[in-house]
Amino acid sequence: MTSASNLRNAAFAQAAADLGYDFDGPIKIGGNYVPYVVNGGEVYVSGQIPRVGDKVVVTGRAGADVPLPQAQLAAKVCAMRALALLRQAVGGDLARVKKVLRISVFIQCAPDFTQQSEVSDGASEVLYAVLGDSGVHTRTSVGVYQLPKNATVELDLVAVVA
Amino acid sequence: MTSASNLRNAAFAQAAADLGYDFDGPIKIGGNYVPYVVNGGEVYVSGQIPRVGDKVVVTGRAGADVPLPQAQLAAKVCAMRALALLRQAVGGDLARVKKVLRISVFIQCAPDFTQQSEVSDGASEVLYAVLGDSGVHTRTSVGVYQLPKNATVELDLVAVVA
Amino acid sequence: MTSASNLRNAAFAQAAADLGYDFDGPIKIGGNYVPYVVNGGEVYVSGQIPRVGDKVVVTGRAGADVPLPQAQLAAKVCAMRALALLRQAVGGDLARVKKVLRISVFIQCAPDFTQQSEVSDGASEVLYAVLGDSGVHTRTSVGVYQLPKNATVELDLVAVVA
Repeated sequence: MTSASNLRNAAFAQAAADLGYDFDGPIKIGGNYVPYVVNGGEVYVSGQIPRVGDKVVVTGRAGADVPLPQAQLAAKVCAMRALALLRQAVGGDLARVKKVLRISVFIQCAPDFTQQSEVSDGASEVLYAVLGDSGVHTRTSVGVYQLPKNATVELDLVAVVA
Repeated sequence: MTSASNLRNAAFAQAAADLGYDFDGPIKIGGNYVPYVVNGGEVYVSGQIPRVGDKVVVTGRAGADVPLPQAQLAAKVCAMRALALLRQAVGGDLARVKKVLRISVFIQCAPDFTQQSEVSDGASEVLYAVLGDSGVHTRTSVGVYQLPKNATVELDLVAVVA
Repeated sequence: MTSASNLRNAAFAQAAADLGYDFDGPIKIGGNYVPYVVNGGEVYVSGQIPRVGDKVVVTGRAGADVPLPQAQLAAKVCAMRALALLRQAVGGDLARVKKVLRISVFIQCAPDFTQQSEVSDGASEVLYAVLGDSGVHTRTSVGVYQLPKNATVELDLVAVVA
């Protein structure tokens, strides 16, 4: 590992510690597909909900049951899961992530909740904290009617790796 | 055609027979765009609803009007339409499909329906049945408020072809 | 600039004049991310709402507060913003846009509104008017529960550039 690798891995560990969750165990997914696919220099990561181990840690509707800071926390946990999968895809060395191209963020919300971008900022902050400029991305934030397991947020991602 | 081609085309025909629908006719789409675009080694397929010929065969809300098995059927029909278009994109030879990178699955649902992943399993099963390991993909499953023509499911796809 | 460049830039200016809005100023976005990322020959553009300057010009639910022609206008404005960003990504020369691969169109709608494809036609028309055959794309149109700032439409895009 290079020092760039060590820096990014340390930033990942710090972000996990800040959230108070462990993202080093296996990342469980819920169905008949795979958590990521590597193709040439690109990695597609499946839609992640804020699950840690067996528990979805934030459920319900943003703007109704779930206040904005909790919805942002959900987005951060989704982003950490996506990073944990990206890390697997690059053999544990996050310095091999060259650019996050896109995150799509789906937010279960109340009918009049219009702060989807603010929710997604939680995910964007985590990506920047861990990957620096390589983590700066394009983004689409949408308010949806429901999500798997009543999750508040689902996030998927495409990234370029070396 | 190679024997791999024959095997995959036979698997496609079997999957169509299992569903009881014909996917060999033209695939109609509803607007001012194209059903697929080939770029380099990638094919993007437009969002597919469960339409066979002129009829959308599954409509309504999963978890309200539409029970889970019917919603899964809708996902299977969407996946077959996407495969039929992929097949066109590769000149009829499904052995040229090397990898499905992503499916995005949008499910019209009731406000408390949280089995979006189980619905998408219908699509994942069809892709694996027809394409084998090349059909194993990343996936994003989201519950939405409405879809074109009151369809229960819409699915789009990106794949790598040779 | 080549004559192809001039033609496309003129088509862009004409489309803006038809809508009565100016798309030559800076394109503001709302959060901690970037409006586009260029990777190799591809450009990802972030989700665009129908904002012109500081104002979102079409808000509310298609099929309830917002009749179809207004929702189509929203889709056109989103497409123009995406084109304005693409134009920045290619140094002002729209002739360098070789193909729009995908647009994803999210429409805030009433529970029984099923004309999402017709709304998206607004965006497809603008892309074709400005880019010609290079603007013909794949498309996914989905009806969602809410969008940032109560926007009626959000659109993102991936394109190939030279």
